[in-house]
Amino acid sequence: MPYPITRRAACALGVAALSTPTAFGRIRPVERWGQHEIALKGPKAGNPFQDVTLRAVFDGPGPTVRVTGFYDGDGVYRIRFMPPALGSWHYRTSSNAAELDGKGGTFAVVAPSGNNHGPVAVANTFHFAYADGTPYHQLGTTSYVWTQQPDAACEQTLKTLAAAPFNKIRFAVFPNEDTPTVPLFPFAGTPPHGWDFTRFNPAFFRRFETHIGRLRDLGIEADVILFHPYDHGKWGFDSMSAETDDRYVRYVVARFAAYRNVWWSMANEYDDIKAKTDADFDRLFQIVQASDPYGHLRSIHNNKRIYNQNQPWVTHASVQNGSAVEDDARAVLYRDVWRKPVIFDEVRYEGDISKRWGNLSGEDLVRRFWEGTIAGTYVGHGESYADQGKGMWVGEGIALKGTSPVRLAFFRKVMAEGPAAIDPIDKWQDRHLGGVPGRYYLRYFGNETPKEWPFVLPRDGVSDGDSFAVDVIDTWAMTVTPLPGAFTVRKSDDYDFAADRTVPLPGTPWIALRIRKV
Amino acid sequence: MPYPITRRAACALGVAALSTPTAFGRIRPVERWGQHEIALKGPKAGNPFQDVTLRAVFDGPGPTVRVTGFYDGDGVYRIRFMPPALGSWHYRTSSNAAELDGKGGTFAVVAPSGNNHGPVAVANTFHFAYADGTPYHQLGTTSYVWTQQPDAACEQTLKTLAAAPFNKIRFAVFPNEDTPTVPLFPFAGTPPHGWDFTRFNPAFFRRFETHIGRLRDLGIEADVILFHPYDHGKWGFDSMSAETDDRYVRYVVARFAAYRNVWWSMANEYDDIKAKTDADFDRLFQIVQASDPYGHLRSIHNNKRIYNQNQPWVTHASVQNGSAVEDDARAVLYRDVWRKPVIFDEVRYEGDISKRWGNLSGEDLVRRFWEGTIAGTYVGHGESYADQGKGMWVGEGIALKGTSPVRLAFFRKVMAEGPAAIDPIDKWQDRHLGGVPGRYYLRYFGNETPKEWPFVLPRDGVSDGDSFAVDVIDTWAMTVTPLPGAFTVRKSDDYDFAADRTVPLPGTPWIALRIRKV
Repeated sequence: MPYPITRRAACALGVAALSTPTAFGRIRPVERWGQHEIALKGPKAGNPFQDVTLRAVFDGPGPTVRVTGFYDGDGVYRIRFMPPALGSWHYRTSSNAAELDGKGGTFAVVAPSGNNHGPVAVANTFHFAYADGTPYHQLGTTSYVWTQQPDAACEQTLKTLAAAPFNKIRFAVFPNEDTPTVPLFPFAGTPPHGWDFTRFNPAFFRRFETHIGRLRDLGIEADVILFHPYDHGKWGFDSMSAETDDRYVRYVVARFAAYRNVWWSMANEYDDIKAKTDADFDRLFQIVQASDPYGHLRSIHNNKRIYNQNQPWVTHASVQNGSAVEDDARAVLYRDVWRKPVIFDEVRYEGDISKRWGNLSGEDLVRRFWEGTIAGTYVGHGESYADQGKGMWVGEGIALKGTSPVRLAFFRKVMAEGPAAIDPIDKWQDRHLGGVPGRYYLRYFGNETPKEWPFVLPRDGVSDGDSFAVDVIDTWAMTVTPLPGAFTVRKSDDYDFAADRTVPLPGTPWIALRIRKV
Repeated sequence: MPYPITRRAACALGVAALSTPTAFGRIRPVERWGQHEIALKGPKAGNPFQDVTLRAVFDGPGPTVRVTGFYDGDGVYRIRFMPPALGSWHYRTSSNAAELDGKGGTFAVVAPSGNNHGPVAVANTFHFAYADGTPYHQLGTTSYVWTQQPDAACEQTLKTLAAAPFNKIRFAVFPNEDTPTVPLFPFAGTPPHGWDFTRFNPAFFRRFETHIGRLRDLGIEADVILFHPYDHGKWGFDSMSAETDDRYVRYVVARFAAYRNVWWSMANEYDDIKAKTDADFDRLFQIVQASDPYGHLRSIHNNKRIYNQNQPWVTHASVQNGSAVEDDARAVLYRDVWRKPVIFDEVRYEGDISKRWGNLSGEDLVRRFWEGTIAGTYVGHGESYADQGKGMWVGEGIALKGTSPVRLAFFRKVMAEGPAAIDPIDKWQDRHLGGVPGRYYLRYFGNETPKEWPFVLPRDGVSDGDSFAVDVIDTWAMTVTPLPGAFTVRKSDDYDFAADRTVPLPGTPWIALRIRKV
């Protein structure tokens, strides 16, 4: 029988739909893509992290789901399950410890509520959608160690995120050597080097997953970075043995996978982690893939060397590149090479530091989102203002002060009004057009300042006599100005359809045109 | 004992260093990377192409080489060997036909002569070199069906190539449906559909390999295209059975692999060959890889869909892209994704036809070579002038009339004077610089027309006080103008070293700077 978890522990876990026996001995229903948690009392002796195995099989209306449990300290073992389908589900445990073996129960899975659209997955080769089919237009940000700040700072960050346009945030499990951090670490033992790598510190993970749950409740995906190179010998988390790495990854997956908003980022700047090879990451990727019963998104982020994104265990590319998204005709190249969604997760940050990775203007960062979008890719935000006093958004989180977020909120609104996915149109010909052929187009001019645009559309999906409505969008001033009258096109040559008049433009930078068939 | 081949057959084969028993019963010496051919009399009955196996093992000072022989019609079987090392070599045959089994001989391999530098292979990840270490700066052209023209036209093409700057040419084994061709086909039977796909037509292959040999003698690599989609049902060569495809590929490799200048292009616009999948090409690639004892270069050329160039059997990328080489910051992206040499084999052609793939100006084509080069990639030429009367260079060959070839000869000369390899410098930052850090730089301005350039070099390999000589290169006028005095640099910030004066520029397009450390 499930071990009744206390109310206090439930709170610390931040579990939205924790199912515990009710007063009537029945398990509370759980939402589809919510979280069903089973807590069991088990052995405390020896090293439960290593000695005890715990698994559960969940049978219900969909395919059987096999889940690995984990030891949460103090003799408590937990099994977490994210139900993928409505209906009645039954589970049964197996363990090498008699107290944990052969436990079972039945519970109902009910319809999701609120902003619960399920986990995000790849859709239409290059894009994303929630499990319920709702399109997911990735608009991410990065704050590497926000979860490792004091509680008050974390609350500030969550408050900032609640008001910000981002629907994904990238952050690391391990601390950064050069960033202040609360004294809580993933392994048992004493910092900086007295670790017992065979035992985890459950308190660290409980706090971390509280934050994942808070993000989930805000409708924000948690792109959890499993490894990074910013340890520099301080704690040694970047140079653990392969055995420890593997055990760590399995433990993380066992704990976090039932959070529907989790994504796995195998590493940040993976190529700067000198103690690991590409083959190590091949192995770690495959461990995650095999351990995660839900197939959450998996990626790996580069500095100078790009991992082989064609590997089948990579679901989408997570790219650092400072200049590829300055030009949609650059950004589009990666897409076709990998035939997977491309997220330019790091494109330089809005900020004012001396390092060039962190001194973009707000205009230049917003431009990257529009360029990336018409290329059919996705872009990530970051902020690095040095005068913030208590660190930078991209490190500690807390507050945003840049000029880009409000424009990115506007950008998100335009995307939400558009089609499920923007694809490049007649790529490789410098059209600077994205959209859905014949139906919806975005033409983006970046820092160019033309006074007019010849209304010309590539032939795909277009017929003689088609008419289009045009909005002039000032992506910086955040205005949408519909132009009077429709633009009706005729075939002009082998490749193009053209209207008999041009589109007047304001002659200022950061202009986009939205063209919709009427 | 080897069957004495007649003088006439040797001529038809175009074999440069055919080794036959001399009057004294000894085999003539053969050059390293030349060609040693053994001809044997064997069975004529049944279907020798299918029924008879013939292999030979060559033992010498290097690793053992295992070669497959082929049936050349009229009861003649041949084994061709490209000796990879100097010294004494011995061979022994094995066959299921007694007349071909257990034959052997010894011959000497002597130093190469003339322009024989051996086969080209990948060097330094992104580049190429001949087997003797000589750098190979790829400067290719394309003429798909030049070998299938009448003899006089082929001679014209070879004469044109002898005077042109190209060191590689891409051409197909199979004819094009829309291009006139001599009535000679790879299979036995009658055109257009009466083929016996179990029997090859040796006369076709003898003629084809004569052309490979002629190119070799001109110092030109033969990038042989094994499949293409331009059949359109006329002969059915684009939709043969997998069994026929495999047998065809094995026969081609058995015949051609001993030509040191052969490269294997699995297909042109492979994604337009509707009867084959990526998995078919995976298989065909692996057959070539396993059959070719010399590991000649292997690639596959795309139209819209890009094959997974990370596959281990792809030695380098052969890319069609009309706009990636308009900007070095685009071109460089592919390089890092694949960590292999990138050849932009099709970048639109110089010409005047109405199709946009064939209407580039000479200036725009030459620009692509310079842009691709500073990105650390390689580019290919093509020409499609409609008013040529007898077809276009890119189809039938014969004559060049464009304005680009003479500028490409100039480009080749500049490359030959430079380092073994040009790599992008501080890529992703829009430097538009390629070269060798600290030692040699090319800065290319394309169609921009600046009047001066601030002399700034990225920090890698540069120290305070380093001095550089600068040549202003007009890549179109084909002039090199050394500037008086050296440019001496000092550290100017975290990233750059700058001189105290700017570089004066002529204010015209197509300018490059060559910057060399003094």
